[in-house]
Amino acid sequence: MKKLLLHLDTDAIPSTFDQVVAYDAGVDNIIAYGGITRDNVTPHVQGLIFTRTSKNLKNNAIFIGGSNVTASESVGQAVKNAFFGQTRVSVMLDPNGSNTTAAALVRKVLTNYDITNRKVVIIGSGPVGQRAALFLVKEGASEVIITSRDITRSKNIVRQMKQSYGIEVIAAESRSDESVAALLIDAHVAIACGPASVCVMPKQTWINNDNLQVIADVNALPPLGVADLEVMDDGIEKNGIRFYGAIAIGNFKMKIHRKAIQSLYDSHDQFLDETTIYAIAKQIDNT
Amino acid sequence: MKKLLLHLDTDAIPSTFDQVVAYDAGVDNIIAYGGITRDNVTPHVQGLIFTRTSKNLKNNAIFIGGSNVTASESVGQAVKNAFFGQTRVSVMLDPNGSNTTAAALVRKVLTNYDITNRKVVIIGSGPVGQRAALFLVKEGASEVIITSRDITRSKNIVRQMKQSYGIEVIAAESRSDESVAALLIDAHVAIACGPASVCVMPKQTWINNDNLQVIADVNALPPLGVADLEVMDDGIEKNGIRFYGAIAIGNFKMKIHRKAIQSLYDSHDQFLDETTIYAIAKQIDNT
Amino acid sequence: MKKLLLHLDTDAIPSTFDQVVAYDAGVDNIIAYGGITRDNVTPHVQGLIFTRTSKNLKNNAIFIGGSNVTASESVGQAVKNAFFGQTRVSVMLDPNGSNTTAAALVRKVLTNYDITNRKVVIIGSGPVGQRAALFLVKEGASEVIITSRDITRSKNIVRQMKQSYGIEVIAAESRSDESVAALLIDAHVAIACGPASVCVMPKQTWINNDNLQVIADVNALPPLGVADLEVMDDGIEKNGIRFYGAIAIGNFKMKIHRKAIQSLYDSHDQFLDETTIYAIAKQIDNT
Repeated sequence: MKKLLLHLDTDAIPSTFDQVVAYDAGVDNIIAYGGITRDNVTPHVQGLIFTRTSKNLKNNAIFIGGSNVTASESVGQAVKNAFFGQTRVSVMLDPNGSNTTAAALVRKVLTNYDITNRKVVIIGSGPVGQRAALFLVKEGASEVIITSRDITRSKNIVRQMKQSYGIEVIAAESRSDESVAALLIDAHVAIACGPASVCVMPKQTWINNDNLQVIADVNALPPLGVADLEVMDDGIEKNGIRFYGAIAIGNFKMKIHRKAIQSLYDSHDQFLDETTIYAIAKQIDNT
Repeated sequence: MKKLLLHLDTDAIPSTFDQVVAYDAGVDNIIAYGGITRDNVTPHVQGLIFTRTSKNLKNNAIFIGGSNVTASESVGQAVKNAFFGQTRVSVMLDPNGSNTTAAALVRKVLTNYDITNRKVVIIGSGPVGQRAALFLVKEGASEVIITSRDITRSKNIVRQMKQSYGIEVIAAESRSDESVAALLIDAHVAIACGPASVCVMPKQTWINNDNLQVIADVNALPPLGVADLEVMDDGIEKNGIRFYGAIAIGNFKMKIHRKAIQSLYDSHDQFLDETTIYAIAKQIDNT
Repeated sequence: MKKLLLHLDTDAIPSTFDQVVAYDAGVDNIIAYGGITRDNVTPHVQGLIFTRTSKNLKNNAIFIGGSNVTASESVGQAVKNAFFGQTRVSVMLDPNGSNTTAAALVRKVLTNYDITNRKVVIIGSGPVGQRAALFLVKEGASEVIITSRDITRSKNIVRQMKQSYGIEVIAAESRSDESVAALLIDAHVAIACGPASVCVMPKQTWINNDNLQVIADVNALPPLGVADLEVMDDGIEKNGIRFYGAIAIGNFKMKIHRKAIQSLYDSHDQFLDETTIYAIAKQIDNT
């Protein structure tokens, strides 16, 4: 029986990237739709759950993507609501690749590295930054700071994370290179999650910092997020600091993404979100 | 050579359900389009018929679906017009699942049951009700009544059925529970084809009726169309009446749907509509 | 590893024809999008090139189609711009089938026929006519005339072809049957590339012409482009002239199209346009 994936995308045109990864994870055929909202998703979910008998339902699964994370999470909720008890299929939620990317980022940072009692500063508070903060707190970091150029935004995000996950993250502002350098002074780990093609950590922000042990960056498009970092860096030491670049992280992200898609077909009732995707990532060798 | 299915849907987003069934029937790849009309369908049909040589044309087929039955039938006509003589492919027309559902419904009702000289009342006059009426007349029912909440509508439908199929169906009105009960008094078979989540046969309409032998309902969403009926009922007797629920019918519908799709690839020149789909359904064991 | 094809179409609904041919060429799965422009194509190209490692990139490829040749060529340019150095995939550009059709047409005309020092008249100056002119000049025809009903248009096209390919083609006007007959007087090869269902070479234009050796027509829909020609004609002689009809050309076009698609997966860095597709066509036996 074919492994089918219903790819639901909140963008107008469904993601090519996510579909290629799904095929590489062993999916036989994808039924892909763009322009999906919480209001039009129900018939597609019910079309999927009512076609195969309960014994075979695990061969049907749903992937929810899209560049708008909030819209995709809202589709995820509507998908759950469209199920009838155990007449359901497994779902993976990875809008904009945020869950798999953040999991890859954190797993790379933790390669042979004990985060316990370490202070982390995350420059950028988008979905990847938020999820990275979540995973690092759960892994035992003593302090995780998340920044944006506007302190009101970072405070809002910290409040939401407290509400959603019951965790303590600290809000900060990263309006200037000086403010970033000041935040990093006693940090052990610095993570760049800023917009593409913006260097949020120029050399003066980290070069004379003796506390810093790890720097990671998810920006793949030049100029990169961190001066002197290269996209292929995979734990290489420069000035006594380990560097992880976007392609090293991206390659590991792909492994997590594929393994998560494969897991969908193990049973018919999983819901893979940030937490469960991170658990899957922990099963993969990160060295 | 791959078995390809061109799935043409008059809805904006093509049906997931129909695509899953097609894969389960052995189709290798589906080319699916939503928003299909009689005015934009021609190039797709000609794209399909002109790619493979006549010997191989039977590996290309067309499925036409969509929730608007009239629009889908009009696409079906346009598809026929787009063929060039024997340069054609097989087509299955099953808008909103109406042909396969009605065929399953009637085949279930006829399980070890002789309809000859029996009176049937169908509450609801949508596409499934109309097709069920057609099949039951053809199978020898002495009287088939089809109802709607508005007698003008049922009369129109009866007139159209006379025109299209040359059969006699009787129009009635089902505006109240009392009118339904009155219609059922000397009926042997009662079929609920009303809208989803509306009970069109509450208990008082059938409980003290000694003539009734079979009750069937295609509504899967609670409240169901018939009081005391359950979706899994597959011929179980209650108060001396055999009950058929939407899931028992739906599971059989799926078998018919799959077999019809498989039949498409037997030759390149079939047109599976209500009549031919019912003939396919008769080849499947309905017990 | 699956052979994936990203089918990018500038038409609203992606071509069915091109997808069937791709499947017949051995593609495992197609990711097809309509409504593609140079402005929305980049994320899809990057989604494709960043999913598989360089060793495996050759299993991803792109096809660009659409009835608007200029729009599709502009998408082709945008696709090239979206690549990152050697992080790229092979691309086939065949808007409206123009490259494969023109290649098939010219290869058929050249079946056991030496074009050196021969004069060719092409009635119609659309994409197929233009590409046929290009190939025939390259193959050594001494004079290639391309016509339209408006001399200004043919002159513009001749100027563009000079600019794009550095070749000399002669512009002419084909406003009436008399003007066509006059153009053909000392021609050896006459090619009909006019609109569908328009006879651009009625009998009086060629019947008493002793110079003509080959007539070809790409119009498959009656009335055909050339009187007395039939779509299945594959080099048959009538009045001492070899005839090639649209289906004979079309069948060969399909072979070229399939072989071009197959070639895409030989390496990850090809760009198949009119020139390279013609080179592929030359490898196929045209008898």
